[in-house]
Amino acid sequence: MSLIVQKFGGSSVADSDRIFNVANIISKAYSAGNDIIAVVSAQGNTTDNFINMANEINPRASKREMDMLLSSGEQISISLLAMAIEKLGYPVVSLLGWQAGFLTCATYGNAKIENINPDRIKKELDKKNIVIIAGFQGLNTYGDITTMGRGGSDTSAVALAAIMNADKCKIFTDVEGVFTADPRRVKGAKKLDVISYDEMLELSTLGAKVLNNRSVEVAKKYNVEVEVLSSMNDIPGTIIKEVAQKDKSPICGVASDENVARASVINVPDKPGIAFKLFSKLAGKGINVDIILQSENGEKSKDISFTVPKTQLDETVEVLNKFIEPLEEAQIIYEKNVAKVSIVGTGMENQVGIASKMFEALYEEQINIQMIATSEIRVSVIVYSDEADRALNSIHNKFFGVL
Amino acid sequence: MSLIVQKFGGSSVADSDRIFNVANIISKAYSAGNDIIAVVSAQGNTTDNFINMANEINPRASKREMDMLLSSGEQISISLLAMAIEKLGYPVVSLLGWQAGFLTCATYGNAKIENINPDRIKKELDKKNIVIIAGFQGLNTYGDITTMGRGGSDTSAVALAAIMNADKCKIFTDVEGVFTADPRRVKGAKKLDVISYDEMLELSTLGAKVLNNRSVEVAKKYNVEVEVLSSMNDIPGTIIKEVAQKDKSPICGVASDENVARASVINVPDKPGIAFKLFSKLAGKGINVDIILQSENGEKSKDISFTVPKTQLDETVEVLNKFIEPLEEAQIIYEKNVAKVSIVGTGMENQVGIASKMFEALYEEQINIQMIATSEIRVSVIVYSDEADRALNSIHNKFFGVL
Repeated sequence: MSLIVQKFGGSSVADSDRIFNVANIISKAYSAGNDIIAVVSAQGNTTDNFINMANEINPRASKREMDMLLSSGEQISISLLAMAIEKLGYPVVSLLGWQAGFLTCATYGNAKIENINPDRIKKELDKKNIVIIAGFQGLNTYGDITTMGRGGSDTSAVALAAIMNADKCKIFTDVEGVFTADPRRVKGAKKLDVISYDEMLELSTLGAKVLNNRSVEVAKKYNVEVEVLSSMNDIPGTIIKEVAQKDKSPICGVASDENVARASVINVPDKPGIAFKLFSKLAGKGINVDIILQSENGEKSKDISFTVPKTQLDETVEVLNKFIEPLEEAQIIYEKNVAKVSIVGTGMENQVGIASKMFEALYEEQINIQMIATSEIRVSVIVYSDEADRALNSIHNKFFGVL
Repeated sequence: MSLIVQKFGGSSVADSDRIFNVANIISKAYSAGNDIIAVVSAQGNTTDNFINMANEINPRASKREMDMLLSSGEQISISLLAMAIEKLGYPVVSLLGWQAGFLTCATYGNAKIENINPDRIKKELDKKNIVIIAGFQGLNTYGDITTMGRGGSDTSAVALAAIMNADKCKIFTDVEGVFTADPRRVKGAKKLDVISYDEMLELSTLGAKVLNNRSVEVAKKYNVEVEVLSSMNDIPGTIIKEVAQKDKSPICGVASDENVARASVINVPDKPGIAFKLFSKLAGKGINVDIILQSENGEKSKDISFTVPKTQLDETVEVLNKFIEPLEEAQIIYEKNVAKVSIVGTGMENQVGIASKMFEALYEEQINIQMIATSEIRVSVIVYSDEADRALNSIHNKFFGVL
């Protein structure tokens, strides 16, 4: 007998049919003699609908009340799922985050799990109940409900698998696993059997939205083997786990992030402290700077370029305008229509020529590279948005194509 | 400075406009220097929608999961209301039943409040917060959410007013108070300034759906003065309180209950124990028998007539069919199209001729009385449904009309 933690996202429980589909997956695993804990998100667009309702009333509502509102989404989905399992004739109980013992930090809207007190869960498992748990939510030290931010249910599931020492942690989604590239955009994208935690983290950060990042960090920290698989068919997905050095592939995937914009301040005086001042002002506004390039531009001036999320470009330009006010020669340039295309692989550092192979693919397609950034396990380039698909396909073909 | 408990029903918070209307009522009372606790129901048809969703999945869902589902309704309304009050610029916090300390018995779907631990509420009031509380729900000894059945929020509010020793308990609804008769059906129906607990209980039982019965019982038990008033205008409502004997009016109102059916078993043997057997069988099926009449019918047989809720007539007839199987001569008669018209008044017992005045009104309208039942503070008659409106108006006119 194994203890299995299963997690089902919002699209998996969007309507009655899908709820019964999930109820069947759970009941099948239970019938096979396993203890089952299922962590569930809010149905389909519930969260978005709640956000719209709140915005209609008060766009600046406190995060505490927002969490109070949003957390009712999982309350609806867990009770309906439990009713479906009752209908199939299995013993079941649904538990809210606070009932399941999820204790979080005090930060509303983006709470981190601090501890899980599994007493109630264990009691229900001892009674041979299937335990359905509201993901995404917990209780803080004030006795108030907190939510963990988008994708938080993944983290609920992985953290629970860690603390319960579960034998398996299965994250059911609407995709069949982690692919070498987005199958909707790249022909020949392949499902990976295995991917390392670090690769998964990079891929997620770079735009491959399969798992919430924090969940992967928690999985890595507690060494929880996580399987990502589809709730719509019964085939194995992708296993995320620690991969031995010798088994590491040079690259595991290609990803594209469209929420990127490029901004530059040109002709700034070449004096110490300029970059520090600029980026501390941006950081002060909560703007998330990614790639940074600095280049000489004549003797006494330089250019500083960087990328920010497209959604933060307007704020960025505001900050830059203030910044250059006292600087006579300085100018601002920015570009919205860019994308960041990246390759990721933990084996990369052991193999030479990975980056140049990527650049070769882009050269063959005559795609201009605007910026380059590298880390130990990834290479990212900034290209124009309308060339991103061609870039993805050519790079993917270079690394994963037949021949 | 006073402590005021306010209660707002589902129609009072049905949409954004109404939520802001309620937020204004609350803020105004708060600005006047009062401590405010507002108990709120689920928005408009939320509860019915949830019941439909549940029925689609499992019409025999456990009551525990049903309560889990239904209780999210108030979670939505309290957070939205709190957001509206934030928007108006007042300090506010919303609390779920369990956060507000509502402890109930274990019975899902129809839980009774056993205790309220007001620590959290007091803490929030000390911080000068307006406290918004989810009515209708509490926590049982298993740590599970329970709901109190239809109208439970009234009881939440009154119980809270009792335990907090509140100065006022105001139940805001979509009517202006308690009337001498239903104003939609009876011309000249008047709003009462004051009504006693007992009269309110009788009127509620008899079909005047202003307040949930249990809430009136709790108000009576703890001597909480309750005002029923409209959330749509700013005029005084009806105060429900203990009324001194000398101030009691002979009758306070006329009510009609349409959820009534009449059933009779005729020609049953006139032997001891027959009535006992019949009514214990009905009770065993949970059938709620109200008025009972028994009459001689010749030497060795009798007729037994009684009323049941119209919604339980089919079950009743089933029970009766079985009951008369061994009784050769017995027959069943039943009639769906009847209504129970009643007059209520605690002063009735001190005045003679109240009942005959009622019968006179019916006689003047040539309305046939099928059954009569009386208690210390009410007289009820069964008439045909299509004569109920005329009956109501003629009786109301007899007691409350100008000459």
